[in-house]
Amino acid sequence: MPRTRGRRPAGSNTREAIVAAAKHQFGEHGYPRTTLRGIAREAGVDTRLVTHYFGSKQNLFVTVVDFPFDPVALADAVLSEGTGRAGYRLAELTIRILEDPGTRQTMTGLVRAAASEDEAAGLVRRILTERMLTPLAELLGPDHPELRAALIGTQLSGYVFTRYVLGLPGIAEADPTELASAVGPVMQHYLTGPLGEPVPG
Amino acid sequence: MPRTRGRRPAGSNTREAIVAAAKHQFGEHGYPRTTLRGIAREAGVDTRLVTHYFGSKQNLFVTVVDFPFDPVALADAVLSEGTGRAGYRLAELTIRILEDPGTRQTMTGLVRAAASEDEAAGLVRRILTERMLTPLAELLGPDHPELRAALIGTQLSGYVFTRYVLGLPGIAEADPTELASAVGPVMQHYLTGPLGEPVPG
Repeated sequence: MPRTRGRRPAGSNTREAIVAAAKHQFGEHGYPRTTLRGIAREAGVDTRLVTHYFGSKQNLFVTVVDFPFDPVALADAVLSEGTGRAGYRLAELTIRILEDPGTRQTMTGLVRAAASEDEAAGLVRRILTERMLTPLAELLGPDHPELRAALIGTQLSGYVFTRYVLGLPGIAEADPTELASAVGPVMQHYLTGPLGEPVPG
Repeated sequence: MPRTRGRRPAGSNTREAIVAAAKHQFGEHGYPRTTLRGIAREAGVDTRLVTHYFGSKQNLFVTVVDFPFDPVALADAVLSEGTGRAGYRLAELTIRILEDPGTRQTMTGLVRAAASEDEAAGLVRRILTERMLTPLAELLGPDHPELRAALIGTQLSGYVFTRYVLGLPGIAEADPTELASAVGPVMQHYLTGPLGEPVPG
């Protein structure tokens, strides 16, 4: 266990101060430009105390991450009018809320953290599964609900990655309404389409 | 310019030795566990000489990356039998070649590098655009070829991210044949479907 020379004694108040500082710093500077040193300075503790409680920047990030939207309420709203056009509504809503800087920062932060090291990937996997995939799957019918939720995850994470992390030409500068039109049928397929058809050669 | 205390004089042979060592190390250990120090040791030079030539691990990776497949030949093969089922063939082929450890390592390495810092993202963006998206777009018809190629990129990168980087339940352990069946209609939509339809509310 690392020894600390912090300006505060260790304790639950210290932990809370670090969490509050981390939320503020990640929100203000985004994931890549936030440092443990900056968080420690705002919390009034030694950097090694932050490391002691949370291990790494990645761990701290996934511990404090707040979704700027409620995934269950979103899925509920999308499915409340029936499944006939639910995929189109899902594409339109998710692409629209990703235009919000706070939402975008959280989701790109999760992608960056997951890509950085296996331990962080495990934490992001847990967050996305518990807060998004499982609740979504519970709202779907009996036909492959977990697989459908996860397939939606492949398209959404790829959208976040190419548009906001990679900046891929053709996606990064495209109009979100145009993208929602293009992605709508994909979400509809993953929600309600036939998944098990063999692929012809 | 950093001074070196390398065991070799600087020069084109040194650069080639670093590139060869980097290819071997990235191939052997994968992107996350490869270090500049390990590459320098294999090349018989000082680590600072590697930094001098290539800047960072990310830069070195994208400089030496070899696709274990030819994207143009793949797209050509997929489109040679007409576009009617081309998306299904594209899904089946790309998902199958990603089962190869070498291909998987290269593609996850590109995702990890792009997510690590803006400079590396720029290099990965250039590689994917020049070697995959532009050649694919040139094979497509006049209806939004760049957007279609990029949309395929959103689904493929999300597939690589969720299955191999994040290890998302429902995708990570799924049978690749089942996944190809699920993703086939998506690729078909992105290749030939109507993209511009407004999304109903």
